[in-house]
Amino acid sequence: MSLELDPLLFGEIDPPQRLLMGPGPVNAHPRVLRAMSADLLGQFDPEMTGYMEQVMALYRPIFGTRNRWTMLVDGTARAGIEAALVSLVRPGDTVLVVNFGRFGLLLTEILQRIGARIETVEAPWGEVVPLEAISDAIARTAPRLVATIHGDTSTTMAQPLDGFGALCRAAGALSYVDATATIGGMELAADRWDVDVVTGGLQKCLGGPSGSAPITISEAAAEQIFARRHTEAGIRMAGLVDGQGPRIGSNYFDLAMIMDYWSEKRLNHHTEATSMLYAARECARVALAEGLATRYDRHARAGRAMTAGLRAMGLTVFGDDAHRMTNVTGAHIPEGIDGEAVRRTMREAFEIEIGTAFGPLQGKVWRLGAMGYNAMRHKVLITLGALEASLRMAGFALPLGEAVPAAMAAWTDRPVQDERA
Amino acid sequence: MSLELDPLLFGEIDPPQRLLMGPGPVNAHPRVLRAMSADLLGQFDPEMTGYMEQVMALYRPIFGTRNRWTMLVDGTARAGIEAALVSLVRPGDTVLVVNFGRFGLLLTEILQRIGARIETVEAPWGEVVPLEAISDAIARTAPRLVATIHGDTSTTMAQPLDGFGALCRAAGALSYVDATATIGGMELAADRWDVDVVTGGLQKCLGGPSGSAPITISEAAAEQIFARRHTEAGIRMAGLVDGQGPRIGSNYFDLAMIMDYWSEKRLNHHTEATSMLYAARECARVALAEGLATRYDRHARAGRAMTAGLRAMGLTVFGDDAHRMTNVTGAHIPEGIDGEAVRRTMREAFEIEIGTAFGPLQGKVWRLGAMGYNAMRHKVLITLGALEASLRMAGFALPLGEAVPAAMAAWTDRPVQDERA
Repeated sequence: MSLELDPLLFGEIDPPQRLLMGPGPVNAHPRVLRAMSADLLGQFDPEMTGYMEQVMALYRPIFGTRNRWTMLVDGTARAGIEAALVSLVRPGDTVLVVNFGRFGLLLTEILQRIGARIETVEAPWGEVVPLEAISDAIARTAPRLVATIHGDTSTTMAQPLDGFGALCRAAGALSYVDATATIGGMELAADRWDVDVVTGGLQKCLGGPSGSAPITISEAAAEQIFARRHTEAGIRMAGLVDGQGPRIGSNYFDLAMIMDYWSEKRLNHHTEATSMLYAARECARVALAEGLATRYDRHARAGRAMTAGLRAMGLTVFGDDAHRMTNVTGAHIPEGIDGEAVRRTMREAFEIEIGTAFGPLQGKVWRLGAMGYNAMRHKVLITLGALEASLRMAGFALPLGEAVPAAMAAWTDRPVQDERA
Repeated sequence: MSLELDPLLFGEIDPPQRLLMGPGPVNAHPRVLRAMSADLLGQFDPEMTGYMEQVMALYRPIFGTRNRWTMLVDGTARAGIEAALVSLVRPGDTVLVVNFGRFGLLLTEILQRIGARIETVEAPWGEVVPLEAISDAIARTAPRLVATIHGDTSTTMAQPLDGFGALCRAAGALSYVDATATIGGMELAADRWDVDVVTGGLQKCLGGPSGSAPITISEAAAEQIFARRHTEAGIRMAGLVDGQGPRIGSNYFDLAMIMDYWSEKRLNHHTEATSMLYAARECARVALAEGLATRYDRHARAGRAMTAGLRAMGLTVFGDDAHRMTNVTGAHIPEGIDGEAVRRTMREAFEIEIGTAFGPLQGKVWRLGAMGYNAMRHKVLITLGALEASLRMAGFALPLGEAVPAAMAAWTDRPVQDERA
């Protein structure tokens, strides 16, 4: 057949061993990669449904919740966001978006397609939105849902969420939090925040591959989602009653159907992405074995060390110190330096990836991450050393040899002078 | 923290070594499982975009096409279906669905949520829809899109598609084919069929895990999709012009955006599911190394062998012989036999999974698959031997020892008597 390729044209999979120190994806934990090599199971086999039950139990502490409905959406983190929004929001509903970066804009973009009436409460890139501003906006707009990002990697800012859910609930609104960039790296506290739906992804602080989106759903939100349940004609069974609300706008992202598969009903929906479920399970086992408090502290040390190192080499760190995400740090590209050329040197000479930026920060800021398996002292130090050398070769005049000791000191929380004494 | 689990509570991933001989998912090829253990790459790294280019090239022969736009949707096969339909269909458009089983019903279910006007042309479960009936229905309904399933595992029937695309094109309609259950097992010929969009999945005849949906898109369809392009506010760049058509109803499934990521523009959308891309790449390499014609023949032999074996043990095979899928076979559950008890014996005594059925066939038909890595003579023979023993233990009076030789004969295409001589 003339359409056939030579199968030897493309060799064995063999990616370079590159250290991914951008805003994600990052290198996966080797245990997670190995878990994906396990063979598949039928989607209703008792061992498969047993693994699903385990995943539900494993993700509850990671989300900081006792929610029954804690599971996976089969797709990348963005699939989890869309599943949450399309299942919570009916066309014409008013949704208040807390917008402080690219991913807040993404929420509005998804909501426009759902047909929501969108209101926003905003902060400039590099800041977060004060709780009082959110409270005022809720009073002004009377939303059915308030949606926010937890950590927005585009600006490296983390929105404080203690008290957020209570504000929403007092106004009769549901609440949604996108925790893609923080899950497994900064504390999630769905129950303490009193929020309704939180979604995440594996490819950042959980140290797994992109392609599975953990989600947790409160009883209140589940009730509203089930009010829009609609069983497929091809598998309709006796005793199943459809909800009275308007049908959810997507089949694949219909959380009522996904919950029916993850419940004891085991109603067939799509074929569960089994290898990704194995990966999600192993991500959670690795995180819980480390201990969540230890893990969050490790990310905080890595963020402090990166920030201190960047400052010690004369760079200006982007954004508000008080609300910095612990796992990704922005650095202004110095005047006269070609940011992409430095990134290329980092990649080609050191096999280290650091991130570019989006929108208003494109060409102006690099983003350096230390997430999951990469939130380790030696990886932060290696990255800083390589960046110092790359900047020097690019002609940037900077103090030499300062970044690494500053980062080491910040890691242990002892001041720089102690470390040198 | 009281919410924390004992991380030892759930052990290492260790699924039983079960032979999956149902309608899919099936056991993955070991090379595919190993490919997923490769470490991750940044989504714009040159090696990553190189692998993406390779995936595009590898899937063209598998779809039987020269379409430039041949790539992956990040989700299960159903994600590919929804991405195709939501990107091709505008609310209010008339869509004609060729419906001969559960997955035709699924198309209507997804289209209802998109807000399409749905017309159907139907066949009873176990038959296919004659081309003349499709032609008449197109004339009657003047659809913007005609959508069909290629092989519907719910009925084990494969819709003939030669001439289908020409009918649609003559009427000015786009055409869509869901090939989830046939890709890699029966010939796909997107160009010869002259159809616009075809989607598939890995978890059946391609011998991979669920979670990635290969898709191919004709130039005509791409043009209509790009007419609805809408770039996200957070990443808008100079020189990018949005289309004039109504915005696509989903962000995650917006094929215009996914195509912009898979093109030299490399516009960021979601973070590519890298491990699943590695899996999809390896599925295609395995298939092309075998040779597609050889592979389709192997599936045809497996299907013939299974059918012959089931008949030799006195079972009635479901559906129309002339249009049987080669990779899954239905067998009527004999009067007085508890179908689920037999499936349990198969699983517990033999570690073999065979399938149940949906909707009108539930409790009446078993479905036995032989797909991908499992479309092998020895696996068909082992399954038939185990089923014979299980049926006998369930009290079904059947001719003993007939199924295996009948299947061996059907595999080689020599009549049964020759084999025994």
